[in-house]
Amino acid sequence: MVDLQDLGKRARTAGRQLAGASTEQKNRALHTIAEQLTLREGAILEANEIDVADGRSNGLSEALIDRLLLTPARLSGIAADTRHVASLPDPVGQEFDQETLPNGLRVRRRRTPLGVLGVIYEARPNVTIDVAALALKSGNAAILRGGKETLRSNLALVEAIRAGLAIAGLPKDSMLYIGDPDRTHVLGLLRLREYVDMIIPRGGAELHQFCLENATIPVITGGIGICHLYVDESADLARAVEIIHNAKTQRPSVCNALDTLLVHHSIAAEVLPQVVERLKVDGVCFKADGPALQIVGSRENVEPAGAGDWDTEWLSLVLGLKVVEGLDEAIAHIDAHSTGHSDGILTQNQDHARKFVDRVDSAAVYVNASTRFTDGAQLGLGAEVAVSTQKLHARGPMALRELTTYKWIIEGDWHVRA
Amino acid sequence: MVDLQDLGKRARTAGRQLAGASTEQKNRALHTIAEQLTLREGAILEANEIDVADGRSNGLSEALIDRLLLTPARLSGIAADTRHVASLPDPVGQEFDQETLPNGLRVRRRRTPLGVLGVIYEARPNVTIDVAALALKSGNAAILRGGKETLRSNLALVEAIRAGLAIAGLPKDSMLYIGDPDRTHVLGLLRLREYVDMIIPRGGAELHQFCLENATIPVITGGIGICHLYVDESADLARAVEIIHNAKTQRPSVCNALDTLLVHHSIAAEVLPQVVERLKVDGVCFKADGPALQIVGSRENVEPAGAGDWDTEWLSLVLGLKVVEGLDEAIAHIDAHSTGHSDGILTQNQDHARKFVDRVDSAAVYVNASTRFTDGAQLGLGAEVAVSTQKLHARGPMALRELTTYKWIIEGDWHVRA
Repeated sequence: MVDLQDLGKRARTAGRQLAGASTEQKNRALHTIAEQLTLREGAILEANEIDVADGRSNGLSEALIDRLLLTPARLSGIAADTRHVASLPDPVGQEFDQETLPNGLRVRRRRTPLGVLGVIYEARPNVTIDVAALALKSGNAAILRGGKETLRSNLALVEAIRAGLAIAGLPKDSMLYIGDPDRTHVLGLLRLREYVDMIIPRGGAELHQFCLENATIPVITGGIGICHLYVDESADLARAVEIIHNAKTQRPSVCNALDTLLVHHSIAAEVLPQVVERLKVDGVCFKADGPALQIVGSRENVEPAGAGDWDTEWLSLVLGLKVVEGLDEAIAHIDAHSTGHSDGILTQNQDHARKFVDRVDSAAVYVNASTRFTDGAQLGLGAEVAVSTQKLHARGPMALRELTTYKWIIEGDWHVRA
Repeated sequence: MVDLQDLGKRARTAGRQLAGASTEQKNRALHTIAEQLTLREGAILEANEIDVADGRSNGLSEALIDRLLLTPARLSGIAADTRHVASLPDPVGQEFDQETLPNGLRVRRRRTPLGVLGVIYEARPNVTIDVAALALKSGNAAILRGGKETLRSNLALVEAIRAGLAIAGLPKDSMLYIGDPDRTHVLGLLRLREYVDMIIPRGGAELHQFCLENATIPVITGGIGICHLYVDESADLARAVEIIHNAKTQRPSVCNALDTLLVHHSIAAEVLPQVVERLKVDGVCFKADGPALQIVGSRENVEPAGAGDWDTEWLSLVLGLKVVEGLDEAIAHIDAHSTGHSDGILTQNQDHARKFVDRVDSAAVYVNASTRFTDGAQLGLGAEVAVSTQKLHARGPMALRELTTYKWIIEGDWHVRA
């Protein structure tokens, strides 16, 4: 039985110490954690083997088994990622909006850690290290709760993290793990408001929903992407097809993969057959609306779009095809069906690009690029803890700066308010 | 019976139109609203008179009656505030973090409205106009829910707002009011996640607690301030006493007023009697810890601090007095008892000031100034919708920029992800 109050208190205390740690101390800890991952490779892989064996005997799919599997190569990749986080700039202590007011008060804001993060995630054990590294670098303590399928792997990884922290002289309790599989602890974590400042769920729509419904702590929701590309009349069709191919097939199981293709009616007869030809090689199946179906004809990998298909995040080699009258209908469709993750226009018309960018209210809005770029590393943040599709605090990819808050610092010369 | 789903849909639709409105359109609407407030003065004051009469017959205290009272002067003040919001810079459309990535992708972030605000507030009717003006200027629709004591005043004010919006050619449904006194509508608003992006409670601790416990939408909590000043050994005592006097007595009923004074033991015998003398003229009563009591002696307006006194937001002419060993004990006390609103140090020692600023984790941290400056207008934001004491999104005074989110805009030259 886990005492969540005790866990919360320990995390809060450790977080306060961590908030005062220098960039050098935090970077040293990241390097010692990477070392510990290497030194403990045997123990970590052994723990993982048991998880994998259990997963197999519990009938997990090979896709899920692959997600939880650690190998020497994967583990050294994780260690390298940890060292990479050490190389990123430290947001803590950065100051902005400095101003001297007319009355002489000197005002500025300074980035500070949030405090304690609560992270609830599903199968992949690499999340344990990813999150710990980003939390540590941004000066935050974290309470982690992973899926039961990777419990042993996670515990071994957390031990490596805590050992690395201790060697570097930082509090071990900066990273705590809820190992008890009892699900009530998830509920408890979501309501540990006195000690936890932000909840980051990493997993499917159901997990996000559960967190939103039950948390009394702010939740960063995201990671659910029904993503659209609109091929405008003026698009460079050959290159448009390559972008569509990339957005759909480069990694179909992730949130920034393409779900629905909207095509301007005047070029539909030209571009849709090309899309179907190009993508069917990769095994893509299509859900087509009436006009699209008429154009591409009945084929093995094409079927009529059904009710609900425009509101489905496929996460697989399925692509919706819809013919639209033009830009306005495309925007209206996106308004109605997008999850606000990543949506783009393919066009050579600057006015249309501008209108699309102005009107589409998604975390990432694209012109002439694949939606697959919505990712902290791809967009220049160096890393990523989550992709937010809610509007408060941070939107889109979240990395180190997005794990901070700020305080106002006001310095006076014995000022009183008149 | 209010149909919240319908209200939500209308607000969402209006918000989308408002998001596309130009700064000029929004400013014009703010001016027409100010005009409407003047033109409708008779009707508004008449509605308010009924609220006041009802309040009196329901036994509201004179302090509460004063909060809900509108006068010609107050109403013209509110109209002037509305025009002032028109003069503030529009955050919507501002772009930041522009970058061209090594692969040629052009990335930037653009501030956009949040969408729809849900605002739940208590007695004062001026909040109706304050919030509407800031929401409108930042391109957000809002669903308002005021206290039942000011229902008629609020409805008259909302009519003025909606008329002003219509005259300026903006959607009337940008500002909607839940007039039905049934409390279940508050609960409904807190769970209207499909249509509402942020909940702003304005009221006491109980209201904030209720919102946090029940909302499935992010809540901006704040406005609860247990505020501290620490008088360090090296403080300029005469000026310190003036700051303490200002922080406690200038407006004792508000969240940034001083609650607890911490005094370095070596100067306690000198400064505490001065504080008591200076503040007793204003009718301040003191809650003193043992050492402080010994110094100031038993007097009419001094009593021993009891259990819970350090955790009480006085909102009145009461001040806690505590003698501490030094800076570390002061910081530890603030850590344990502050609500993270406004805390300050009075000192001439630069190292102590720096350590205090580094270590105290509050929304506003002061050196040699009164805590009364924690206010959007005082700190240069031009206005204020709330003072946040939570850490996500915005901390401290929130004005126009804090009512926006951002979208990522990514422009490529037919880029695909490798």
